Amino acid sequence: MINASAAGVIETCRKNRDKIGTLYAGQNGILGALHENLIDTSKETASTIAALKHCPGGAFGSCRYKMKDIKDSTAEYERLIEVFKAHNIGYFFYNGGGDSADTCLKVSQISAKMGYPIQAIHIPKTIDNDLPFTDCSPGFGSVAKYIAVSTKEASLDIASMAASSTKIFILEVMGRHAGWIAAAGGLAAEEAGDPPHIIVFPEIPFVREQFIAKVEETVKEKGYCVVVASEGASYADGALISGSLNKDAFGHQQLGGVAPTLASMVKHSLGYKYHYALADYLQRSARHVASKTDVEQAYAVGLAAVEKALQGASSIMVTIERSAAKRYNWSLGEADLVKVANVEKKMPRSFIRKDGFGITKKARDYLQPLIMGEDYPPYKNGIPQYPRLKKILVEKKLATGFTD
Amino acid sequence: MINASAAGVIETCRKNRDKIGTLYAGQNGILGALHENLIDTSKETASTIAALKHCPGGAFGSCRYKMKDIKDSTAEYERLIEVFKAHNIGYFFYNGGGDSADTCLKVSQISAKMGYPIQAIHIPKTIDNDLPFTDCSPGFGSVAKYIAVSTKEASLDIASMAASSTKIFILEVMGRHAGWIAAAGGLAAEEAGDPPHIIVFPEIPFVREQFIAKVEETVKEKGYCVVVASEGASYADGALISGSLNKDAFGHQQLGGVAPTLASMVKHSLGYKYHYALADYLQRSARHVASKTDVEQAYAVGLAAVEKALQGASSIMVTIERSAAKRYNWSLGEADLVKVANVEKKMPRSFIRKDGFGITKKARDYLQPLIMGEDYPPYKNGIPQYPRLKKILVEKKLATGFTD
Repeated sequence: MINASAAGVIETCRKNRDKIGTLYAGQNGILGALHENLIDTSKETASTIAALKHCPGGAFGSCRYKMKDIKDSTAEYERLIEVFKAHNIGYFFYNGGGDSADTCLKVSQISAKMGYPIQAIHIPKTIDNDLPFTDCSPGFGSVAKYIAVSTKEASLDIASMAASSTKIFILEVMGRHAGWIAAAGGLAAEEAGDPPHIIVFPEIPFVREQFIAKVEETVKEKGYCVVVASEGASYADGALISGSLNKDAFGHQQLGGVAPTLASMVKHSLGYKYHYALADYLQRSARHVASKTDVEQAYAVGLAAVEKALQGASSIMVTIERSAAKRYNWSLGEADLVKVANVEKKMPRSFIRKDGFGITKKARDYLQPLIMGEDYPPYKNGIPQYPRLKKILVEKKLATGFTD
Repeated sequence: MINASAAGVIETCRKNRDKIGTLYAGQNGILGALHENLIDTSKETASTIAALKHCPGGAFGSCRYKMKDIKDSTAEYERLIEVFKAHNIGYFFYNGGGDSADTCLKVSQISAKMGYPIQAIHIPKTIDNDLPFTDCSPGFGSVAKYIAVSTKEASLDIASMAASSTKIFILEVMGRHAGWIAAAGGLAAEEAGDPPHIIVFPEIPFVREQFIAKVEETVKEKGYCVVVASEGASYADGALISGSLNKDAFGHQQLGGVAPTLASMVKHSLGYKYHYALADYLQRSARHVASKTDVEQAYAVGLAAVEKALQGASSIMVTIERSAAKRYNWSLGEADLVKVANVEKKMPRSFIRKDGFGITKKARDYLQPLIMGEDYPPYKNGIPQYPRLKKILVEKKLATGFTD
């Protein structure tokens, strides 16, 4: 969805070229700004930019790079200002989750601390849905839809073969320390007793005996058991379920191993035949089954970021606000970036069933609208057509490079 | 797709009720016949049956059950005849892959060996695409589409983050000893050099040094490397890549571990950050991204099975035949079940690139038509609507049960 937001930013900037001029995209996020690798978005056609609305991944590249604190190291910030000055950059739009909000906040602080005028606006995007103040984060709705759909489909498969084969299926999902994505698996259940029968949340300390008892009870009652488990699930002492159990032949820790670890526990305690799936990046990039609501919101927060900048805003994150009305309705607002950065919004306890293994009606009411609507990409030769950008770099103006 | 074939069988039987009477579905395949657990399909509404065309899993249940050889044990066969006689069953349609073809063949042999008139027709369905004589197997085209689409989407994700994070992504796919599903990952590449950069086939003996060298070369050239690896990939001596390397904390072998094993090799030899996905049952049940061609073929083989039975055929498998014309065109034929049962059709060497790590144009020409067209299920509340069957069992007529 980060590309849909980019489309919202670029198309709105194009409409306001008289005020904004040319929009550059940092190649690989803030690293592009630091290295003066700036992509000239004006070289891309209108149809390419429109096609970003249905393109997975991050079209201009992304990064995992945490800027140092402004008071510990001014070198990075001086470099940024050099680049901004050299290219006459006055608006800074940054798209991502908690770490990106932190980067955006730090950039906004340049203005005050270092006397360079820059308006920095954060555009929310994280499949983890763990940004505070916003009702939801673009990217989440589509992953939620993918997980709900996949859980439903795989459950039908297990149900049909459980009598003489696999009895337990575990789907491991992303979400880091927040159980939002795992909770979305719960939407696969349309009637009471429907799979998934167990959701393992990071918010609920894992107790092996309780888990095994629930699996056994479910298999006895239903003939099979479907589990959705969050990668961040952990024991009461904070140790990850996936953390310490598995080592490969080279002695390396195996990462992302909640599903195989839970499967082993079941096999060991109950002897059931199991299967597990690890959707990993498939869930994050599954544009082919996106939520229409999510796509609309992703575009809208990009558009609003530009409009808010033109109205003089800085150091804010655009937020999605849910109306109090019973029928789902959303509008856009903003939150102070100082309050946003480095806060993780986890699932409230009221969204998790008393036994800790499922979602409540409250959670369902929150989640359901976010996966509504389908927004299919165009297909050619049997696969989705995603745009190929030219990514033409702006000529460098600075004599020196940057070493991170 | 097994449900789409079931719809083809049921709707065609309904049109020929005067000749066929009532169609029963064995609950969990042949086990339902042995246990006299027969679902009366006439109790299902026409719209439910039509909806089977877009429903994953096996609506009447499936089984993993291999019948003994007719000369070793007559008990099973006598029991089958008892059930067939009690319910006046004269036609037997059986849907599945190689093991099911074997079951169907054995049932057809009852007629000759035990003097009970039964026409047994096999309907091909296996995502592994390893049935002989038929150009392809229903089920495969949709899994192929899912793998091609998922590979393309995940590749865009990796491409955007490789500069400062994950450099290698491995998608483990099904297919047992045949590389058809892995080959389908190759359809994600639209231009030369596009990901996936490496496909690990079960047909090509795995050589660790060659694999590592190819990964290193790809990352140096492209900045990242996407691998599609078949669960059945093995070394020259036949040992599975996934076989012996990983054990969990309880000392159990980890199954389905090609992706983590390859990832560990890369980490150990090259130090790259990796991610891997294990689609497992998600790929087999992903009805939300089915191939229209596959759905049409699945329905057609079901329909043809009934028509062929009415024309007096027995002990055959319905086949899909590709015309020699350049433009893809298919029709239906049949193959002798004796020749079909227990033969696995693997990827021909001419479909695999000389270096063993990719598909040839010949493979692409074969695969491409099978993933053509989209056939979306209807959605409600953000998830696909799959039918719920009544599955009303026919009253048992036999005094005794069956113990397998």
